[in-house]
Amino acid sequence: MTDDVRGQGGRGDESGPEDVLAVGVLGARGKVGREVCRAVEAAADTRLVAEIDVDDDLEALVRSGARAVVDFTHPDVVMDNLEFCVSHGIHAVVGTTGFDESRLRTLRGWLADSPGTGVLIAPNFSIGAVLMMRFAAAAAPFYESVEIVELHHPDKADAPSGTARHTAELVAAARREAGCAPVPDATSTALEGARGADVEGIRVHGLRIRGLVAHQEVVLGGVGETLTIRHDSLDRASFTPGVLTGLRAIASRPGLTVGLEHLLDLDV
Amino acid sequence: MTDDVRGQGGRGDESGPEDVLAVGVLGARGKVGREVCRAVEAAADTRLVAEIDVDDDLEALVRSGARAVVDFTHPDVVMDNLEFCVSHGIHAVVGTTGFDESRLRTLRGWLADSPGTGVLIAPNFSIGAVLMMRFAAAAAPFYESVEIVELHHPDKADAPSGTARHTAELVAAARREAGCAPVPDATSTALEGARGADVEGIRVHGLRIRGLVAHQEVVLGGVGETLTIRHDSLDRASFTPGVLTGLRAIASRPGLTVGLEHLLDLDV
Amino acid sequence: MTDDVRGQGGRGDESGPEDVLAVGVLGARGKVGREVCRAVEAAADTRLVAEIDVDDDLEALVRSGARAVVDFTHPDVVMDNLEFCVSHGIHAVVGTTGFDESRLRTLRGWLADSPGTGVLIAPNFSIGAVLMMRFAAAAAPFYESVEIVELHHPDKADAPSGTARHTAELVAAARREAGCAPVPDATSTALEGARGADVEGIRVHGLRIRGLVAHQEVVLGGVGETLTIRHDSLDRASFTPGVLTGLRAIASRPGLTVGLEHLLDLDV
Amino acid sequence: MTDDVRGQGGRGDESGPEDVLAVGVLGARGKVGREVCRAVEAAADTRLVAEIDVDDDLEALVRSGARAVVDFTHPDVVMDNLEFCVSHGIHAVVGTTGFDESRLRTLRGWLADSPGTGVLIAPNFSIGAVLMMRFAAAAAPFYESVEIVELHHPDKADAPSGTARHTAELVAAARREAGCAPVPDATSTALEGARGADVEGIRVHGLRIRGLVAHQEVVLGGVGETLTIRHDSLDRASFTPGVLTGLRAIASRPGLTVGLEHLLDLDV
Repeated sequence: MTDDVRGQGGRGDESGPEDVLAVGVLGARGKVGREVCRAVEAAADTRLVAEIDVDDDLEALVRSGARAVVDFTHPDVVMDNLEFCVSHGIHAVVGTTGFDESRLRTLRGWLADSPGTGVLIAPNFSIGAVLMMRFAAAAAPFYESVEIVELHHPDKADAPSGTARHTAELVAAARREAGCAPVPDATSTALEGARGADVEGIRVHGLRIRGLVAHQEVVLGGVGETLTIRHDSLDRASFTPGVLTGLRAIASRPGLTVGLEHLLDLDV
Repeated sequence: MTDDVRGQGGRGDESGPEDVLAVGVLGARGKVGREVCRAVEAAADTRLVAEIDVDDDLEALVRSGARAVVDFTHPDVVMDNLEFCVSHGIHAVVGTTGFDESRLRTLRGWLADSPGTGVLIAPNFSIGAVLMMRFAAAAAPFYESVEIVELHHPDKADAPSGTARHTAELVAAARREAGCAPVPDATSTALEGARGADVEGIRVHGLRIRGLVAHQEVVLGGVGETLTIRHDSLDRASFTPGVLTGLRAIASRPGLTVGLEHLLDLDV
Repeated sequence: MTDDVRGQGGRGDESGPEDVLAVGVLGARGKVGREVCRAVEAAADTRLVAEIDVDDDLEALVRSGARAVVDFTHPDVVMDNLEFCVSHGIHAVVGTTGFDESRLRTLRGWLADSPGTGVLIAPNFSIGAVLMMRFAAAAAPFYESVEIVELHHPDKADAPSGTARHTAELVAAARREAGCAPVPDATSTALEGARGADVEGIRVHGLRIRGLVAHQEVVLGGVGETLTIRHDSLDRASFTPGVLTGLRAIASRPGLTVGLEHLLDLDV
Repeated sequence: MTDDVRGQGGRGDESGPEDVLAVGVLGARGKVGREVCRAVEAAADTRLVAEIDVDDDLEALVRSGARAVVDFTHPDVVMDNLEFCVSHGIHAVVGTTGFDESRLRTLRGWLADSPGTGVLIAPNFSIGAVLMMRFAAAAAPFYESVEIVELHHPDKADAPSGTARHTAELVAAARREAGCAPVPDATSTALEGARGADVEGIRVHGLRIRGLVAHQEVVLGGVGETLTIRHDSLDRASFTPGVLTGLRAIASRPGLTVGLEHLLDLDV
């Protein structure tokens, strides 16, 4: 059994019988939770055994035989959910936000008392977004210039997006480590904002356009050539392959994993 | 004889003999001037008869029989050049910068005294840039959202580019005239500069990337769809078709024309 | 009252009271029909008065007071629907396919007997697609090279798409009319299919990619520069603004109109 | 000393004194050779000591003290050049084409007799092209669909480009190894060529557009999202950083290396 989603286009050969993972979903009646339920039901190697939401008892998880949960709930309740799951040896794949260093420390404490249990906390379950960030950071030291453009629907509250900011930080770190000089920029007169936001020396530009969903482009350039890495999310369902990847991998990764990227075997 | 560059890919049929236009180039030894000389020599319907630069006498133009000039010189000398040409009935295609309302007024005065002589002042001779601006302004009233991204080499001094700023002004004017509401933007928390520069309500973003030359993208979006118009200049020679267009048209357009766009017959 | 969708981002000023158009939808329970019903209900200047589907009596249209209908039904029934509507003086906006010259002739005959009634037949209600085609055809004579790339989901049965084929025909016609030479192509050794399909001398390439919806790019190029016009449909709802445009315009355009483009006032 | 070009944007810190590599250029008066000479002269850590072309004696290389050569000559002479260099212990970076398995075997034999000497044979010195291929192959197993679009000037003789074909082979191999199913494609009616060329099950499309240089895009897609990796060569000089990378690395890689990619330390 593979612990990643490579080959997800469907195996050409017929696989033999495999263990099917019993999965409970926390936040099952939310918009995202419903998509997760659908994906868990549709996948051949996972089975949906419990749909829990705000008014339900967590004990139902135990009764259902769930070996792993997916949690897309709320920062106010996610820690209670995880304490319960870890203490019952139930693995967890978590998309709920709000994890700071203090919460991660608490979580590591609980996991230390429950060896064999694995928890994945991921701010982004899009495999494409993770690949874009990895490739951008890998390529950045080979180029003089790097900038980031993110494009989203106009109802988004923050700019730049969290993914764009995180990409810029990864790119900046990769360049620092390789000893790169700052990106060149001879701008001497500019309208305010024309050169974007500065995230650790990397310029980030945010567009807000009706009709778009979530898109990002990293543009890298050197003498006579450019390399562009672009990720387009066209549908909210795009995060479900990443959740399934997490579920398949987490049982064999005891302890805390932060970030989907650690579960992708890239072979680059 | 056509007054535009349509069909410039080359006529399939053989044209009969045509009048060949005798052209003088002012600023002939500058980087741009040399390209102009090459283009005037290469075109079948123009002939290079005079190459004038800073130390040469303008009287040589008259002796050469030039019926039109191309001027890529300097704001300090261009008015003297034009006074000479207009008073001698020589048409002019001008790419030199620095024309404000006062200079244009002076020029109109000279042209009033020399009926039949035509002068074209154009800030941009790229046909692609002109088409991009026309299409962007034409499409803008049909979309809720419009933003502009320009990308240039990192040695550029100003941001955003003049073309991007001008495009934003044209888009804003077209939307005002059509009674459009402001573009939607729910951004409530942003890093400084993340949303670009504001040019009359249209957001403009400038990237500076080694390896690039001059590029611009106008992104328009409405419910469920986007339209993107992109212009890429990959070589400085891209302005020469526009200069030839100007030369072919100017003899039959007495008086002052500002902007190449008035010479393109778009049939949209 | 405007007869186009310009300014659709919403008027900045408050409009005074206007006539609200009573609209019936034929094929109201189909996937597309349901979207049309939603859009007609949501717009301020249209009102949904009848939802007709396969088992319903067309007389209900008359009883409902519908002044116009939208027809997204089936080639087998659309002519009966239109005969009924035209004979009752009800305007029609039609997205159903299958109109050949013989059907259009029949339709013109019915309309001749019912002066004042208007019918719009449109193969494509996406305003972005219409703009893309108009701009591509307008720009094509200014460039040596033009090619078309269309990208769709992999469940699509035909390649290239109807829109790509139609764009190629419009581009080819515009170039013929302007006397352009054939596009240059020095290819002497090629894998079969590498240079795409040939539609009247214009190369068209079709990609089939999971995750995509409906996308098209027209790439035009001349010495040192390229112009790219790209349309992205990210959601099926993108056709509804075009349907509303048709409804608003059709009452004041008696007779037959084929193609949404005739209702867009482009001012290019 | 690093054996790659990462950090090529220029080091922020001042490097101490380093060995400067004495380099000879074979084919020095060709178009490519002249660019190589310029780049070797411009780099701080290489020095141009010999410019050899068709009529020059290879012994001049030895007299010049060259420790490495760059060979952009011709298939007819490159083997003689390499036999001379290897037998004199001069490292070689080779961009000349025409290396088949028999030539590589001969070369390995010479190198076996000259331990400590290194030869790099690379079909493509563009770092961006190499990164694009690596990233495309790494990402391909995570997506259902992959297609390749290459865009070049219309004077190119072959379609698809060698780089596009090679990328398709790498992508196909990565998918086979991961056990992916074939890419989905429901096309049942198509114009000839509309779906591109088939290279080991991967579709490849070639555009020929005046104004372009050499460009390639790999489009990958899965449920709800796409990842696009694009490489743009805008200037022939874009291969020189790869040549310098080869020169810096080859002295410490005895024996035969085929492909620049083995010298890029990607850390992905």
